[in-house]
Amino acid sequence: MSKKWTSLLVLFCYLSCGFCGKVTGKVLVWPMDFSHWINLKVILEELHLRGHEITILVPSPSLMMDHTKIPFNVEVLQLSVTKEVLMEEFNTDLYSVIFELPRLSWWDMLTKLAEMNERFFRTLKRVCDSAITNKELLSRLQAAKFDICISDPLSFCGELLAELLNIPFMYSFRFSEGNVIERLCGGLPTPSSYVPGSTTGLTDNMTFIMGKAEMWLIRTSWEFEFPYPYLPHFEFVGGLHCKPAKPLPKLDEFVQSSGKDGVVVFTLGSMIQNLTEEKSNMIASALAQIPQKVLWRYTGKKPDTLGPNTQLYDWIPQNDLLGHPQTRAFITHCGTNGIYEAIYHGVPMVGIPVFSDQFGNIARVKAKGAAVEVDLHVMTTSDLLNALKAVINNPSYKENAMRLSRIHHDQPMKPLDRAVFWIEFVMRHKGAKHLRPASYDLTWYQYRSLDVIGFLLACVATIMFLVTKCCLFCCWKFGKTGKKKKRE
Amino acid sequence: MSKKWTSLLVLFCYLSCGFCGKVTGKVLVWPMDFSHWINLKVILEELHLRGHEITILVPSPSLMMDHTKIPFNVEVLQLSVTKEVLMEEFNTDLYSVIFELPRLSWWDMLTKLAEMNERFFRTLKRVCDSAITNKELLSRLQAAKFDICISDPLSFCGELLAELLNIPFMYSFRFSEGNVIERLCGGLPTPSSYVPGSTTGLTDNMTFIMGKAEMWLIRTSWEFEFPYPYLPHFEFVGGLHCKPAKPLPKLDEFVQSSGKDGVVVFTLGSMIQNLTEEKSNMIASALAQIPQKVLWRYTGKKPDTLGPNTQLYDWIPQNDLLGHPQTRAFITHCGTNGIYEAIYHGVPMVGIPVFSDQFGNIARVKAKGAAVEVDLHVMTTSDLLNALKAVINNPSYKENAMRLSRIHHDQPMKPLDRAVFWIEFVMRHKGAKHLRPASYDLTWYQYRSLDVIGFLLACVATIMFLVTKCCLFCCWKFGKTGKKKKRE
Repeated sequence: MSKKWTSLLVLFCYLSCGFCGKVTGKVLVWPMDFSHWINLKVILEELHLRGHEITILVPSPSLMMDHTKIPFNVEVLQLSVTKEVLMEEFNTDLYSVIFELPRLSWWDMLTKLAEMNERFFRTLKRVCDSAITNKELLSRLQAAKFDICISDPLSFCGELLAELLNIPFMYSFRFSEGNVIERLCGGLPTPSSYVPGSTTGLTDNMTFIMGKAEMWLIRTSWEFEFPYPYLPHFEFVGGLHCKPAKPLPKLDEFVQSSGKDGVVVFTLGSMIQNLTEEKSNMIASALAQIPQKVLWRYTGKKPDTLGPNTQLYDWIPQNDLLGHPQTRAFITHCGTNGIYEAIYHGVPMVGIPVFSDQFGNIARVKAKGAAVEVDLHVMTTSDLLNALKAVINNPSYKENAMRLSRIHHDQPMKPLDRAVFWIEFVMRHKGAKHLRPASYDLTWYQYRSLDVIGFLLACVATIMFLVTKCCLFCCWKFGKTGKKKKRE
Repeated sequence: MSKKWTSLLVLFCYLSCGFCGKVTGKVLVWPMDFSHWINLKVILEELHLRGHEITILVPSPSLMMDHTKIPFNVEVLQLSVTKEVLMEEFNTDLYSVIFELPRLSWWDMLTKLAEMNERFFRTLKRVCDSAITNKELLSRLQAAKFDICISDPLSFCGELLAELLNIPFMYSFRFSEGNVIERLCGGLPTPSSYVPGSTTGLTDNMTFIMGKAEMWLIRTSWEFEFPYPYLPHFEFVGGLHCKPAKPLPKLDEFVQSSGKDGVVVFTLGSMIQNLTEEKSNMIASALAQIPQKVLWRYTGKKPDTLGPNTQLYDWIPQNDLLGHPQTRAFITHCGTNGIYEAIYHGVPMVGIPVFSDQFGNIARVKAKGAAVEVDLHVMTTSDLLNALKAVINNPSYKENAMRLSRIHHDQPMKPLDRAVFWIEFVMRHKGAKHLRPASYDLTWYQYRSLDVIGFLLACVATIMFLVTKCCLFCCWKFGKTGKKKKRE
């Protein structure tokens, strides 16, 4: 009988753990602002559609996450600082990164950067403190019995919260340049001989908790990224936010009026609000010289040199415009989201990288022949004009962009479906420990086999020592006998 | 007008390269015998079902590939040696590996192994020569314009043929123990600190052509394998041959007669035909002592100690038996195919590894708590009996086997579908170059950044040399002046 019961029990577990079925679960989200949020939101909407209950922790002064408009359960983390103050601080820093830092001496630049980093991490810490010191919130979250926490390794705290609530967690992330975060916290082996350089720095202190992430959903893929080694608990879901283009009721007249020349779409992303007057005039005068119509997302002062072919907008439906058959090129600051939309729709690019991973991003699409790069700091009107003419008139850029697009679309499963699959997998199985390499449990000297090498060296040294001693003893013995014989 | 034509051309390429559609193609296959063939056949049957034209090159004396029964286009490679001679040679070698080698001294064992390897590779070379020196065959294959060649890195020659015919090729393979082949030929980074040891050896000579493989379809997966780093052009498709169990019309009466105790399935695989009389008697007497009925696939002499609960068979429907609800345990030689069938159906195992990757395989399922290992060379009747009692009566083995089974079934896409997807991908895109890491184009010292380190060391040495020289010069100068002053 006991065997029968065991079999029944096993069968029950088998079925209840969702062997082929679907479970709906409770998802806790520790988000990151800006482009990270744009991307994560798409995953959360899909999870919501599939019946999962989403609860998101949003700081009161978030810049792009308006907690009154988020269609999930929202826990607002009240901070004393207002959104306006934070926005002002952020814009000052960003302006400084783009226009001031490149002109500073090396030493001043490092000092300034460290200062900004300190401010950035201080804000993050304040947000984190507001959550983990709030006992009432914690006990409410504890009582809700979440199945998973989805976090972002750049906006640290999600992993700490998951640890406090004792639930598995996953990261959603764009690969950091040089994979510093993934290498230090995710155990990724990336030979520096062919995986490009680094811009970020984190200490080993974070590894302990961050290394516990069940999976890393990485927002790139191989038609865009340079291939390198990775681990089984990394899933590459780049471009999960891209969709077929919808019609453009408001912009359609302007776009269609471009005729056979088509249009150029231009945006420097959600973070950059304005440029110096000199830069914006220089750019506008380049745009004025092309036969294409230009849609420029720009909220700064209208440049004096703006041509009649160029329209400024506070916001544009970027994905729908890039998917429009009239679109000939995309001028971009090289954020990952925008680049993926251009790849999805096969649009060649002119890249003007501004900060962070944008330099690495343009290097990738340039190497694949789908983009031309111009440098914001030294570019002239003719530089931008020539870059635009190249990507529009030289068919190789369009062909390469279409090749990347074909590869991007030709996947065994859509990136969004894979992201959702693995989140649900972690919920169903209470983790994904079978994907976890043993390297996590090794110290740095064990990982590099230094303990083994050390032991072998010690053995060799001991043997050499003994052999030498034996030889010396024999020589001494032999010498003595020899001398004795001689004396005799 | 030229722009319009360019757009139309691009659109045509876009559609004709099969952006969302399906293409049927011509597949050339360079197979490997035995369990490799069992696995590859499943992929080929699926490709055939999807309308692809398969042509397979089969050596006339193949042991498991009967060219008269293969339902694809077959090109028979005529060899002077007969199937019977090869079988005899093979059985002698196998018997020697299992029963003689372990008793030999270390030196004699190595000599004997080298002899066998030499014989194995000589046969492979003979097969290879029979293909690549046959000009008529080559020109026929050239004329057929294949889209892809599927090969096995152990049965070398497929890559050479693909090179001669100028078509992309892919490998289908079980990971080699210690990943020696994948490391040397596929560029896989596997830190020896946590990726277990090696049994195979290949020279760097093979890298040149083998490194050109577009993709590696690896016949393992992470519920079974210990996780380690891999590269984007490795796809893990372990268990692709497993299927839901079909009814057992012939064996059903015997299986059902086992009642609540159930049955044990026992096979040492397709390669091992017989054991020594002593071993078979020892095994049979252990089997006679369990309450379960036993189905034993064994073509050797019937053991004298065979119990009434045990039936011998020349062949058993292994997958269907393992999927039968009456099955309590699987005694296996730990071949990858059999282990995957046990994982698929959630059956705990008693492993008796015999040679090759079987030792690594049992280590994996043992570590995951789904198997007990016994050593063929030293085991006694009570060892086997205790192992069987453990996996049948201790529920943890069944639970762990079921856990592995749940993970195996819970994949975003079935392994066979993924294997077929990537074969079709390579056909559609004439390769998969976007998955290829740049490490392939580096020399070994570039890969390890020794050129960079060397240059930096040279810089440091030069600076130190100059600084020392300067110091010496200053000291000398200062000393001279000092002496002069003193003298004055």
